[in-house]
Amino acid sequence: MQRAEPQEFSRVLSSMCTEPHPTAREAAEQFLASNPGDPGTYGTVSTLEREAVDRLGTVAELADPAGYIASGGTESNVQAIRLARNRADTRTPNFVAPESAHFSFRKAAGVLGVELRTAPLSDYRANLDAVAELIDSDTVCVVGVAGTTEYGRVDPIPALADMAADAGALCHVDAAWGGFVLPFTEHAWSFADADIHTMTIDPHKMGRAAVPAGGLLARGPELLDELAIDTPYLESTSQMTLTGTRSGAGVASAAAVMDELWRDGYGRQYRRARSNADWLAAELDDREFEVVEPALPIVTVDLPARLIDDLRDAGWRLSRTEAGEARIVCMPHVTRSMLAEFLGDVDRLAE
Amino acid sequence: MQRAEPQEFSRVLSSMCTEPHPTAREAAEQFLASNPGDPGTYGTVSTLEREAVDRLGTVAELADPAGYIASGGTESNVQAIRLARNRADTRTPNFVAPESAHFSFRKAAGVLGVELRTAPLSDYRANLDAVAELIDSDTVCVVGVAGTTEYGRVDPIPALADMAADAGALCHVDAAWGGFVLPFTEHAWSFADADIHTMTIDPHKMGRAAVPAGGLLARGPELLDELAIDTPYLESTSQMTLTGTRSGAGVASAAAVMDELWRDGYGRQYRRARSNADWLAAELDDREFEVVEPALPIVTVDLPARLIDDLRDAGWRLSRTEAGEARIVCMPHVTRSMLAEFLGDVDRLAE
Repeated sequence: MQRAEPQEFSRVLSSMCTEPHPTAREAAEQFLASNPGDPGTYGTVSTLEREAVDRLGTVAELADPAGYIASGGTESNVQAIRLARNRADTRTPNFVAPESAHFSFRKAAGVLGVELRTAPLSDYRANLDAVAELIDSDTVCVVGVAGTTEYGRVDPIPALADMAADAGALCHVDAAWGGFVLPFTEHAWSFADADIHTMTIDPHKMGRAAVPAGGLLARGPELLDELAIDTPYLESTSQMTLTGTRSGAGVASAAAVMDELWRDGYGRQYRRARSNADWLAAELDDREFEVVEPALPIVTVDLPARLIDDLRDAGWRLSRTEAGEARIVCMPHVTRSMLAEFLGDVDRLAE
Repeated sequence: MQRAEPQEFSRVLSSMCTEPHPTAREAAEQFLASNPGDPGTYGTVSTLEREAVDRLGTVAELADPAGYIASGGTESNVQAIRLARNRADTRTPNFVAPESAHFSFRKAAGVLGVELRTAPLSDYRANLDAVAELIDSDTVCVVGVAGTTEYGRVDPIPALADMAADAGALCHVDAAWGGFVLPFTEHAWSFADADIHTMTIDPHKMGRAAVPAGGLLARGPELLDELAIDTPYLESTSQMTLTGTRSGAGVASAAAVMDELWRDGYGRQYRRARSNADWLAAELDDREFEVVEPALPIVTVDLPARLIDDLRDAGWRLSRTEAGEARIVCMPHVTRSMLAEFLGDVDRLAE
């Protein structure tokens, strides 16, 4: 392993993951050798998983949550569409999601054989009229995004949930990244705010757990029963996860870090990220670049393509929206001094 | 985390996972904060993943392997059936697998909407006549198991591959557990032994990597192209995995431990496990319990149900076959003295 350097975050602006919190890292190392996919054999980590799910329920304002710690947002999104498909009574199922939905919903559509109907946006959020037009009697789920990947926007979740209910469909909220930020905002996104059925909310993004620790929540256990298959050989008897063997490290780190940071620690983290995003947006605006007003701590700015390339050559990990804008995700490892250094390079290279 | 004890393996006879090798643990801890699902951002771990896949190719006798490090055997099995379905030209696809196939193939069938046809066994291996009868023009894949979960048996892989070829179907081998044992035996199971297309071979089982580190191998990259979807926001452009964010810890630990143990270290490990299994089988046979002759280091024995319950109450993690036999997986953490202690409890509790 001589060539393996530790992961260096000092120039990473592109990732929705971050350095695990020290408490998360310690727990992950302690549970590296356990498998929550085999709860009969690995009992302690199963208890921790139950605690982690309960805590996620608290974050998302759901008492007695059903759910589990998944490999990440993709698995949770696939599982939400899978359970909606399985409970519906149609041979030609579809689901409706805004164009801003994460690409994992396209993966879900392909894997599961469920048609994905994408609704156009208005001001970066799902256009409700367009969603309504796409829903029909074969619609098994309506998806809303609470913190979009590109612009950090929050769809009108309560209205989407109402539309789903009218159509007899489920409503799934993708708060994979937003879930540990939104409790400190005025947005309506949670199980208390709307009659939603399932949610993706990932401890290993803004929750600062170690990868892999995604989260799937469901309003009741009967929804997850749609996913269960029998499991011979294991001491337990059924399995609802998409994967089989799972990471005890991820589960234990999620339980530990949420125990430590919920609620004040995450609140402080949000305010710091928010302040950094607002500052960066103002600085870029001062330089007459076109900035999309940040709703959550993600800054999207229309930089010249050549400047983006030059910044990447200078070592900045920077990703782009489909429209070509640069996108800076203000994760906990993204400090004010790091952003100042980035701006310095923007100034130097833009000349 | 006061309540969290480190995972204790001294009485675990049921798991196909084990304590990670110290080299694997060290690498996992070093890469806890990286995500091979985002190779543009996390470059070093992507290089390690390429090395790990190359090494898996060496183990399974495939030059220039395509593939990736998956979350585990379930993901690899689902992906193999998914790519077989996607490349086939039928609206009513099916795949054929022996009754001994892991339950993840039932999961794959449900998730993917592909009919699973299970063939009965002869002497714990796929009955070839039965397989032949189940194959038809809608068959997209024929599955063989190289090291069955319950009895450690190896299906007649070359014959299954020939049948698949005759039907224009793919042949997938599930060597999730067996892959790091079979190179030291006379069994025909590898890409060199038969014209197989894909294989599940998990570093985090007998390979001693840290969970999660499964492996999917494919004979050529064009097979995996069936799985690719576009990925905006990431600096890379497409993704073939089932999950999105993935564990850098698993990838790095797999690369490191395979580098250290292939080939002599795994050979020694196999001979130790084999000798323990043969010894345990002989001891149980001496006590006039009915033992299924071990083909690989898994001992299956017909113990009375009450004795199994009593052994579990005494702290032994012991799982059962569908037929009700006790099943002892001779993983690297299962030592001769641990088995002697187990036998002592068998003697004491059987009285």
